[in-house]
Formats: sequence, C-alpha cells, structure tokens
Amino acid sequence: MNIKDIAKLAQVGVSTVSRVLNNHPDVKESTRQKILELIKESNYIPNNSARILKQQNTKNIGVLVKGVFNPFFSQMINVIGNIINENGYTMILHQNDYKNDQEVETLIAFIKEKKLQGIICLGGNFADITDDCFKEINVPIVLTSVNTVSKQGKEYYSSVGIDNVKSSYDATSYLIEKGHKKIALILGEADDIGVSILRMQGYREALEKSKIKIDDELIIVGGYSSRGAYNETLELLKIRKDITAFFALSDIMAIGAAKAILDSGLKVPEDISIIGFDGMDESEYYNPSITTVKQPDKLMATMSINLLISQINERKENQHILLETNLIERDSCFNLLK
Amino acid sequence: MNIKDIAKLAQVGVSTVSRVLNNHPDVKESTRQKILELIKESNYIPNNSARILKQQNTKNIGVLVKGVFNPFFSQMINVIGNIINENGYTMILHQNDYKNDQEVETLIAFIKEKKLQGIICLGGNFADITDDCFKEINVPIVLTSVNTVSKQGKEYYSSVGIDNVKSSYDATSYLIEKGHKKIALILGEADDIGVSILRMQGYREALEKSKIKIDDELIIVGGYSSRGAYNETLELLKIRKDITAFFALSDIMAIGAAKAILDSGLKVPEDISIIGFDGMDESEYYNPSITTVKQPDKLMATMSINLLISQINERKENQHILLETNLIERDSCFNLLK
Repeated sequence: MNIKDIAKLAQVGVSTVSRVLNNHPDVKESTRQKILELIKESNYIPNNSARILKQQNTKNIGVLVKGVFNPFFSQMINVIGNIINENGYTMILHQNDYKNDQEVETLIAFIKEKKLQGIICLGGNFADITDDCFKEINVPIVLTSVNTVSKQGKEYYSSVGIDNVKSSYDATSYLIEKGHKKIALILGEADDIGVSILRMQGYREALEKSKIKIDDELIIVGGYSSRGAYNETLELLKIRKDITAFFALSDIMAIGAAKAILDSGLKVPEDISIIGFDGMDESEYYNPSITTVKQPDKLMATMSINLLISQINERKENQHILLETNLIERDSCFNLLK
Repeated sequence: MNIKDIAKLAQVGVSTVSRVLNNHPDVKESTRQKILELIKESNYIPNNSARILKQQNTKNIGVLVKGVFNPFFSQMINVIGNIINENGYTMILHQNDYKNDQEVETLIAFIKEKKLQGIICLGGNFADITDDCFKEINVPIVLTSVNTVSKQGKEYYSSVGIDNVKSSYDATSYLIEKGHKKIALILGEADDIGVSILRMQGYREALEKSKIKIDDELIIVGGYSSRGAYNETLELLKIRKDITAFFALSDIMAIGAAKAILDSGLKVPEDISIIGFDGMDESEYYNPSITTVKQPDKLMATMSINLLISQINERKENQHILLETNLIERDSCFNLLK
C-alpha cells in the first residue's frame, strides 16, 4: 500500500493525500476524514517522500510496557527515559493491557498513531509475530525482556533479554542440590506464553534431569502481584503439607509467598525454602533476605535503548542479544541434606 | 510577547512567523532557525490564532515525575496513563532530576518543548513558584502530591494532595500513645523542602504537644530508598541504644529500617517499633507487617487527571484539594505501657 493506492481508494489525486499527510489546511474536511480513515485501515505508513519523512520526524520514541506496576520495569523505564531525553527524543509511554492475541496489532497501531521513530517493548509475549507482520513497519523495534515463543519475522526486530530456560533450570537445580523434591512453582500468569512458559520449561527440565516426578498441582499462578502469590500459596499450603520449597517467577510474588508461609505458622527457610526472580530491593531487605535470580536490568535497559537509537540513526541488521543472570544466595534456602 | 513581537525581533513579517509555527516548507532555513530560537528564548507560546491553536493541538499531556523509581508514583502513573489514553490523549512522561531551584523552569520548558495541552507534576517541591511564573503559561497545571511551601501563584495551578502535617502528627501521636518517647524520624531527602519538611513539622508538633524534647540526632535521611534507610538506621542504632521507635516517611524506607533493626540483633516490634508511610504492598507483606500511613494513591491519581482534563476542555478556577489519609494498624508497633 502506497500513497497512490490511498489516492485511488479515496478517488482523489496523490497531491490531495499528500496535503492531508502534511496537515495542509486547504482540503475539504470530509475528504480529509475519508483519507485519514483509509490510512488508518490500511497498513500504509507514509515514508516514501522526503517531505513526508520530514513531517514524520517527530522525535518520538515509544515505550510499550506490559504492567507498569511491576517495579522491575519501572526501574528500566527510568534508565530508558533518561537516555531518550539525553539524545533529544521524547518518550511516549504506553501501557499494554495484556491481550496476547493482539500484541502485534497494538504495537503497530501505537507506532502509527504516535508517529514513532522507534519503539521498545518491555515485557509481553508477542507470540502473534508472523514473518510478514513487521514488513511494512519502517521503524526499528526492540523487544526487551520478551522472549517471544514465535520464531518468525526475526529479521524485522531486535531483542534484548535473558535465557529464561537456563536461569530457571539453574534456580530449580540449586533447590534440588539442597535436597528439595517437592518444589512449588509460582507462575506470573496462566496465559503468559512467553516468559512464564520458558521458565516453566527450565523448571521441568531440572526436575526431569533429577528424575523427580512433575506434579502439576504444585504449579500455581500469582498474577505478578504479592497479593495473588500470597492467596495462592496460602491455599496450596492447606492441601499440600509435603512442599519444602517455592520458586516464584518474580520477587514481588516471592514476598507474597513468604508471607503466606509465615502466616501458615511455618518458618522460612527452616520449614520451607523460597527463591525469587528479578533481584529487586524488596527481596534483599525482606526478613529473611530472599535468594533470587538477578536479572541485569540496568544493562538490559541501556543496551535496548542504545541499540534502538543506533538503529534509528543507521539501519543495520537486527540483533538478538541474550544476557547472563546470576543466582544471588541469601538467607531463604535451607539445605535438607545437612 | 506575541506573534507580532517575535516578527519584529526577527525582522520578518507576521505571516513568516506563522508559516514557521505551522511547519510550512517555504521559509528560508536560516530564517526558520532564527525565529525558532527567538520563540525558545522568549516566553512566547503561540495560542492566539485559530490556525496556530489547531497546529498546537497536539493532544499531549505531560506527566513530570520526581523519581519514577518510587513504586508509589509508578502505580499512580498507571492510573493516570490509562485515563489519558481513554480520553484520546498521549502521555509524555518526563523524569525530574531533583534540582529544587529549577523545578518551575523545568516544568515550563517541558510544556513548551512538547507542546503540552496540560501537565500533572507528581512529587517535587516547586518552592520556586512566584506570583508571576505561570502567568504566561496558558495550559492547565495540576501539582499532585507536591505540597509546595510557596504560597504564591496559587490561582495559576491546581493541586491534589494530602495534609502532610496532620498525617505525620497522627502517626507520631500513635507511637507516643503507646509509650514511645525516643522516636527516630527517617526523612526522604535533606533538601526536600516540600513533603519532608511538612511531615517533619507534624512529627515535631506531636512531640512538643506531649512535652517530649526534640532530639535532632534522631532525624536521619534515607534518600527514599531501602538501601539508604538501611545504612542510616544501622549507623544510628550503633550510637543510640535508647531508640524504641522509627517513623519512616515512605514504606520502602521503612523496610530498609526494619531490616537494619533485625540485622542489629533487635526484634520488630518487641525491641523497636516502626511506622511507614504510603500504604504499599511492600509494607503489608513484610515480616512483620508494617503499620503505615495509607495515602489514597488511586483516588489522588484519578482526581488529578480528571481535574486536568476538565480544565483542558473548559478553563475554570483552579482548585486545591486535600485528601484524607488512614493509619493502617499492622504488626510493627509495640505498646510499651502494657
């Protein structure tokens, strides 16, 4: 779809479409509306004329974030926002409200509507990426902390993230090495097919390697909140007295789970061990301090925005970067073998 | 300063300035630069012609936040962002980097640069507000959770906040009623002349009312972070063995202080009581649960953005709204009198 196609569909000349795109006043209002409607409906992004490019040069960089409540992303937004400002761009922050089958659609609409020069997506699944969906999107895209399960269209976007399978495998193995067999897993969301599914895979692989039977009743969903994890952990502990460890896929869920364990009259770590994920202050200052998988959040944020800005300045081949995580040992894991 | 003054200074006609403002192509580049420079230098905001107004109608709403790291503000940004989107506006988020004497300047520059239709400031002091500083700013301003110490220029902006003096007075009195006399106070920042100074005033008034001598050594600064509060509390506990309670002016600082108390070999609340401020999940799920002053964060966010949007649609007299806080009693305060 190009400017000529739009003109043909609207039954006007190319110059009229151009005037609308340039926000020129001398176009009939009904014609303007019709053309804008057609542009919106189509996948057309005006970028094939120097004049339009100039008009397009909004200096807007989009940050599409899944769940700004998550303090993990808040810190990353802080880093990204500072670098955006330092480079003379404007950050447009938009929250994604979690519809897995519309994530690509939301992203494309956001780029068009705000005339973005580039976009970073923090979190989300983007399982609906196809080989073609970003073909007509002529601005750089960086998916950060996303780890989509889709293998398609990788040449049209960059990504920065961690190896979720390995990180989770390592954390689970750490518990197994301390003699734990009944290890509960707290997922973010049931339909979180990106990060959660990969981390669940790491958990399963670690158990399988040690010939520990996987027990689906031990896999619960905490909704990425302390409250959700608290409630689910409390319920699980009522029916299952054999659990000796919890692995929560975020620190804020680990805190909720820890509180539920304590409120059930059990001790952390003497009765039940716990591991979190992310490496937030909340787990460090908890009583007891919670062992966690530390993500390189600041590095991830810095690399994402620097990669995006370099792509805006000079389009190069897209990159897919995996960063290392670290298991930070604190006071929440008990060794059953000693 | 109006469009004619700009034209005169630039030694061009009014229509040339108008063309620059409308981003019209047929202006010599050097002339365009000169005019943009003059507009930038002056306090001129183009809004006195219908055409310019239309061009100006960016649908951008600014959110200027002091310290996006603060999870308290993150949650409010979430609420504000959703309402901005629902109303068809775009949220431009900008972080304020804490220079107290330049806050008004930063705010005005932000409004002009991003052609904002309105702005919400989350946090900050804005002690440099004068009677005149917002006179030429023709867009609505809402200061939220700011409580500036400046009494000037109140007719040019709205505000939504809490009664910091009373909230802090009540929390301190609560500790005094439980028999505490040696109550340490953890401020956000030493030069935080807005919120911290008002809460410190409430703390002092409560002590004075009960004829408890104010001991400046017990007032420390936690930098609004768990780590800062942890370090300062640890140091204070080394030199002062008589403290029986801490009042931290944010929950994330309360958590850091609690951990420092525990790491000093003392118990919460049996040896030392603690009260936080904000009402975050982090204090609720802490071990033990931390008593806190709950701010109506969601209500504050909703009222701020609704007030701003109604002011954008129809300018009315500015309002200054104070909301109630609640002391939420949990498990971190010990009654010394029982």
